[in-house]
Amino acid sequence: MKPIKKKPMNNINIDRLIKNVQTLGTIGENPEGGIDRALGSEADLLARKWLMEYWKEVFHRETIVDGIANMWLHVENGGNKKAIVLGSHHDAVPNGGKYDGALGVLMATEVAETIAEQKITLKHPLMIVSFTGEEPNPYGISTLGSKALAGRIKKDQLMNYSHRDTTENLVEGIQRLGGGLEKWGEIPGKEEIGAYLECHIEQGNRLVKMDLPVACVSAITGIYREQITVTGEANHAGTTMMDSRKDALLGACEAALAMEAILLELQDKDIVGTIGYIKNLPNEANIIPDHTEMILDVRISNEEKKIKLQHQINERMKEIESRRGVKIHRSIILNQPAQPMSDVVIRAVSRGIEQTGFPPVQLVSMAGHDASNVAVIADSGMIFVRSIDGKSHCKEEYSTPGDIEACANAMLQAVLILDEEMAE
Amino acid sequence: MKPIKKKPMNNINIDRLIKNVQTLGTIGENPEGGIDRALGSEADLLARKWLMEYWKEVFHRETIVDGIANMWLHVENGGNKKAIVLGSHHDAVPNGGKYDGALGVLMATEVAETIAEQKITLKHPLMIVSFTGEEPNPYGISTLGSKALAGRIKKDQLMNYSHRDTTENLVEGIQRLGGGLEKWGEIPGKEEIGAYLECHIEQGNRLVKMDLPVACVSAITGIYREQITVTGEANHAGTTMMDSRKDALLGACEAALAMEAILLELQDKDIVGTIGYIKNLPNEANIIPDHTEMILDVRISNEEKKIKLQHQINERMKEIESRRGVKIHRSIILNQPAQPMSDVVIRAVSRGIEQTGFPPVQLVSMAGHDASNVAVIADSGMIFVRSIDGKSHCKEEYSTPGDIEACANAMLQAVLILDEEMAE
Repeated sequence: MKPIKKKPMNNINIDRLIKNVQTLGTIGENPEGGIDRALGSEADLLARKWLMEYWKEVFHRETIVDGIANMWLHVENGGNKKAIVLGSHHDAVPNGGKYDGALGVLMATEVAETIAEQKITLKHPLMIVSFTGEEPNPYGISTLGSKALAGRIKKDQLMNYSHRDTTENLVEGIQRLGGGLEKWGEIPGKEEIGAYLECHIEQGNRLVKMDLPVACVSAITGIYREQITVTGEANHAGTTMMDSRKDALLGACEAALAMEAILLELQDKDIVGTIGYIKNLPNEANIIPDHTEMILDVRISNEEKKIKLQHQINERMKEIESRRGVKIHRSIILNQPAQPMSDVVIRAVSRGIEQTGFPPVQLVSMAGHDASNVAVIADSGMIFVRSIDGKSHCKEEYSTPGDIEACANAMLQAVLILDEEMAE
Repeated sequence: MKPIKKKPMNNINIDRLIKNVQTLGTIGENPEGGIDRALGSEADLLARKWLMEYWKEVFHRETIVDGIANMWLHVENGGNKKAIVLGSHHDAVPNGGKYDGALGVLMATEVAETIAEQKITLKHPLMIVSFTGEEPNPYGISTLGSKALAGRIKKDQLMNYSHRDTTENLVEGIQRLGGGLEKWGEIPGKEEIGAYLECHIEQGNRLVKMDLPVACVSAITGIYREQITVTGEANHAGTTMMDSRKDALLGACEAALAMEAILLELQDKDIVGTIGYIKNLPNEANIIPDHTEMILDVRISNEEKKIKLQHQINERMKEIESRRGVKIHRSIILNQPAQPMSDVVIRAVSRGIEQTGFPPVQLVSMAGHDASNVAVIADSGMIFVRSIDGKSHCKEEYSTPGDIEACANAMLQAVLILDEEMAE
């Protein structure tokens, strides 16, 4: 939809922002047009270099690289107040897109650049951040930079991670990126950061369906995982009659479809569930399987609804067990609660979106983000920009300049509102 | 059920037969009570030695070991007529039971011993055989001995098979068992064998359900295998709404259950189908699968019914494809027709069963057997004995002495009838 109203306001420079997205999008670009820019890669180093040079050129300030190699730019030093931080991450999944992460860092840069250019004076210090290793990577740890910020990974745990191909230890990798255990104390904390705001592509198609360019994120989804093991009876695929079987795989198929049906019936846009993993034994064409394992991954933020969902699954599994004569064992392997975004940031983002001329809809983020870690130490929030076709983690990932402009303008307004409303 | 009538007839010695089953069943017995007696193993050699010594003791004749190491005993040399051959195999699947194969060889021995003992004169030569390597084995070829007999494996193909652990070539393995390429010409052929009759445990539970100890085998089932590949769209397990997914694994689950439903609806005791193998990609808990492969194994003997089944599967797959937006590709990877048993042998076995006091029911064998190969060169048939609980290929495999006695007596009668009715 088009903006429903348009009032005079400070505007970001969309051409400059898109040019920066294109430029950063060439670093790590592969011949197929996807982006390879994993933590610690040559492209990671080049992207860092490009960002530091760009920030130096625009803001005339040096980037501070902390102990975990997060990159920080103090746009305005301000007084003793806590800072407003804008940012995201610059690394990418293998063969990923130009927008996931990079757009957030560059939009933060554009908003800060607009503020500097328009000589807007803020009451709080303003900082830009690009976090280290947000995506799954060969060292085996994601949202690394923001985990360190939140104290969710400690200095002496780094050595437990090594690159699965090069065997480089994560401590050395971080050193190579400009971080280092000796600088661990320089990682900013809650005494320094007052609020954090991150722009990210939605990576889904809810905004497409609502015909809206932007949304305010209300929470980052909880993730709930169950391992489901169906036990039947292995038997000869030829000599065992159809009605005398205890087929673990068919039991698992029914369990998977029952879970899908329950999730579809909920008709809740903030709850999805997936069975992505299955293991079948003995997995031979001529033997009836006796052991089938699956992992159910549910993204759910409401604890009451989670309990209701578990009950519904229980009922269906019992029914399948008794009808098929198989045993279904379920164990919870992950039960990560939702991370609500801060009210003060949600209010500022919602008003920023309204001032840009769009209704301030709220969405739950169905994927994890750095904001979920930063929320442990500071008021945090996110703003989503529409993903065309809902695509992400692929070279087709795209958001239109019009949507990006609406988002960046809303973010600029949100920063101005936050600056007024933040406690100190 | 108990015999419905009992008329005077020649009877085998059930105590002797059971004692032999127990004795052979100690060779290769593992601590858990299962039998490890794979082709070429130490237990295979010991079982051969025991059989040759027993035959020598009882029949005063030397065993002939042919080029593929099949063991033959000429019980009665007879004239120039073609022989009646009774037998099965003495090897076993890993951790298998005491009855699969071994019972057939020992019942053949018992029937021949009874004929010799009771000085019954036959018009045809009588032979016992124990075939080499009927079961799947580490050399990667099953029903090896009978394949060589039928010309389904040639002398110069043997070298293509090697033991997957020891790397011993099959040529050497066969040599070690007393065979050898130089004796290939000594493998008996259709000029020598007139009829073949094999007793085997049913390995299923149809006789249990019918409350009968024995049945005549009408045919050895055909095996039809399809590889089914479901292609969907990989996507983020969190950000992709439930109604926007093209989940290959859920499509495969529906396909598997649809195939089960079609097979159950047929209510045909001679048709079973199994999906024992599944492969899912990328098989990660947090990614919606885009590629799921399965193998469907159908045991079916009637070509018309097979075509009807294929049509029914087609219809259901089309429906799943269009509803789920996935592609389902199917390719036939095995299409082995049924092997009917010979009419003359079926008649003799049926009358043998009747004379033993039971109704002469006919069953299709749902597993492959040596008889399926021997049928290429001679009138062949099989007699099934009830498997308790339908169990097979496990240490719980069992048939009662009463059932075995009924079967052996029916086989003895069948041999006497065959001897009368065979053409030459």
